[in-house]
Amino acid sequence: MGLSRRIAGFAADPGPLPDKVRAAGRRAFLNMVGCAIGGAGEAAIDRLVALLPAFSGPATTSLIGRGARADMLWAACINAAAANIFDYDDTHIPTVIHPAAPVGPAVLALAESLAAEGRPVPGTALIRAFVTGMEVTCRLGLALHPVHYTRGWHITSTCGTFGAALAAGQILGLTEAQMVDAMGHALAQNAGSVETLGTMSKSLSVGQAARAGLMGALLAQDGFTGPAAPLEGERGFLALHSDAPDLAAFDGLGQRWEVLQNTFKPYPCGVVLNPVIEACLALHGEGIDADRIARVTLTGHPLLRQRTDRPGVETGRLAQVSAQHAVAVSLLRGEAGLAAFSDAAVAGPLLRAFGSRLAFCDDPGFALEAAEVTLDLTDGRRITRRVEAAKGGLAHPMTEADLAAKLRGQIRHNGARLDADALIRALETIEDRDNAADFLALTRGATGE
Amino acid sequence: MGLSRRIAGFAADPGPLPDKVRAAGRRAFLNMVGCAIGGAGEAAIDRLVALLPAFSGPATTSLIGRGARADMLWAACINAAAANIFDYDDTHIPTVIHPAAPVGPAVLALAESLAAEGRPVPGTALIRAFVTGMEVTCRLGLALHPVHYTRGWHITSTCGTFGAALAAGQILGLTEAQMVDAMGHALAQNAGSVETLGTMSKSLSVGQAARAGLMGALLAQDGFTGPAAPLEGERGFLALHSDAPDLAAFDGLGQRWEVLQNTFKPYPCGVVLNPVIEACLALHGEGIDADRIARVTLTGHPLLRQRTDRPGVETGRLAQVSAQHAVAVSLLRGEAGLAAFSDAAVAGPLLRAFGSRLAFCDDPGFALEAAEVTLDLTDGRRITRRVEAAKGGLAHPMTEADLAAKLRGQIRHNGARLDADALIRALETIEDRDNAADFLALTRGATGE
Repeated sequence: MGLSRRIAGFAADPGPLPDKVRAAGRRAFLNMVGCAIGGAGEAAIDRLVALLPAFSGPATTSLIGRGARADMLWAACINAAAANIFDYDDTHIPTVIHPAAPVGPAVLALAESLAAEGRPVPGTALIRAFVTGMEVTCRLGLALHPVHYTRGWHITSTCGTFGAALAAGQILGLTEAQMVDAMGHALAQNAGSVETLGTMSKSLSVGQAARAGLMGALLAQDGFTGPAAPLEGERGFLALHSDAPDLAAFDGLGQRWEVLQNTFKPYPCGVVLNPVIEACLALHGEGIDADRIARVTLTGHPLLRQRTDRPGVETGRLAQVSAQHAVAVSLLRGEAGLAAFSDAAVAGPLLRAFGSRLAFCDDPGFALEAAEVTLDLTDGRRITRRVEAAKGGLAHPMTEADLAAKLRGQIRHNGARLDADALIRALETIEDRDNAADFLALTRGATGE
Repeated sequence: MGLSRRIAGFAADPGPLPDKVRAAGRRAFLNMVGCAIGGAGEAAIDRLVALLPAFSGPATTSLIGRGARADMLWAACINAAAANIFDYDDTHIPTVIHPAAPVGPAVLALAESLAAEGRPVPGTALIRAFVTGMEVTCRLGLALHPVHYTRGWHITSTCGTFGAALAAGQILGLTEAQMVDAMGHALAQNAGSVETLGTMSKSLSVGQAARAGLMGALLAQDGFTGPAAPLEGERGFLALHSDAPDLAAFDGLGQRWEVLQNTFKPYPCGVVLNPVIEACLALHGEGIDADRIARVTLTGHPLLRQRTDRPGVETGRLAQVSAQHAVAVSLLRGEAGLAAFSDAAVAGPLLRAFGSRLAFCDDPGFALEAAEVTLDLTDGRRITRRVEAAKGGLAHPMTEADLAAKLRGQIRHNGARLDADALIRALETIEDRDNAADFLALTRGATGE
């Protein structure tokens, strides 16, 4: 059987999900909702919402963390964009994919829309579809990694389109043949470039992944057909994106679960900055005066430098992938929340000037979740702080309490008056609910209305 | 100055257009409108239109060749899909791009929308923007050709997204910086795979090119910003799609014009089939009985075989890129219009069986617009017909009368009662009109209503 058909079969029926896989799904879903609440008030989201009066159909579906509603495709698009806008969402460690943002908003918008038609989607079904879509997203990423990302593709958007299509397809009850069609439509519409990271453009590819995947599933259900082998075809997804895709990435579907390699960020930054920030926050706690720091050296995996050596950034968005800003704000101010990566925070001349004291030292022996920060002081002293396994990594995962605290922070950042306790409880118990989308009533704030 | 900025400057002000360039624009526009009329009733278009009640904003804009209307983004999307659905549209010979389908519907929908707001776009401005967008589309294709297409990218969709963004941007009067932003949004959203050709999926990438380009321009106007170097950046469009993009493709912008290499198809097929069909129609005229044909050999450029060796196709869509079907229907029936490439025509057992008698002979010495068809008859005779420059190629372009006749055929295929004379006259004189979109009143038929 061809790969596309095999994936379609898995998406149509992934079999029983182990408890820890379901838990990974619930955690990722809660984190996605929180990130969408936190991101909902960003200027890029405002500008997308400004398109709705002219370009949305009947507004049946919720924009998370805003009072506005939109049609199902726009809700999927905008919620995905909001969930990922700060890159504060989840991270599949082997591929650096953020799997929840494209997949979760697609199935959520569909579930809310179906509920309005009197066909509510139970929480178990939503989490099952969400996990399925994330799993395929991560498997596709594994098959293409690292060539795909290195060439410059935004792997969350490209692979996530397929995950969104299949997750929505599962909720719709698509046949295997229709699942293949839906993947064909994902093939026709998936896009995303690393060059757009740190700009508003990025939100378009993430939003498109959710929208195009969902639309692909809806069209497949209606007899809109596609190619027979969208994944493994001669000019299909894998061939387009890698000279040598690793087909072993698809072994053991339903037996081993890549979603268990998914992690959650404690800081709204590129995940490679986690250990750096953790070390800098600790060093800040030691009360070293900025004027006495002559030089800061970051030692870490080469990807740390490659992805975050960005001096002189001028926007909060770029600051999230700038080691210069992350070090300055966490070391000098002891801050690493959403406010620390705002446009206003970046504009501070002291922080900007401090970035020039930063040096990188590549060491391929470092894991991605490890880093060493060395301060050379003006008096000749040297202080080093090494983090072997930053919080948020696989060895030191965020706890339920950490995730709940993170969600509370997102609500604060949003500014809407939401009942955080009720929302957290609803999301933690989503699999007990007959209508998976009913928690959305708890996310309707006043932001941007 | 960087490439993106240079292209942005050209898009903002391409300078005066030579008369023959404007004529190429008018011809391509007329042909695009005709193709959209002809394609408007296809099942894939019906299924996209079926999404509109749930997913379109206020229906301000025309779907060409249908009575229905949609919001501007959906109109751009669906008209682009319809214009290209039969691959009967134009072809930029050096790259095999169909430049009009993604670009024309984007600027047309914008022009109609602006007219409704009391700001009509004159025909000269529409053609100027259309030519500009097509020109950049073709230049991008040249820079990536042939690696891009060979890898499997649907070059019309990928490059066309940028053309649509810039053409819409010119109508909107975007600044150069905004034009760069719009290209960033095109980078984030462009997609398309050759694997989808012959299936409904293909229409999604072409439609998305027009929609995403137009949306990118609208967002850029509203301060939605993107990367500084979407084309030439380290992980920008050119790097993503080629190991060695040819930057000389961008020399002489505004001085030499790639749109002059754009051609129009006499048959609704892959352009490499033009000489084959022309030869087969001539052979049909000689009245050779199908039973006496033991074998048909097609000699041509290797691309002829690579793109059209598709035996046993089961849909009209795939038949358009199947030499087996094209030869059978043109040789045995003397037909090569839209009806000859319908699902019904493909279902005929005689035509299907005949395909097995076809053989290919690669000869790199053949130009793409040349081919030789050799019939080996059961009595041992051999008949050969060679076409050096098929109609529709650069050496034998479609005349104004050919284009008008083609448009009449599209109207017949559509089935709507349209005033063909008035429509042809309106399109031929579009540059004399104060409102470029007013011809749309002449395209509103009853198809699919």
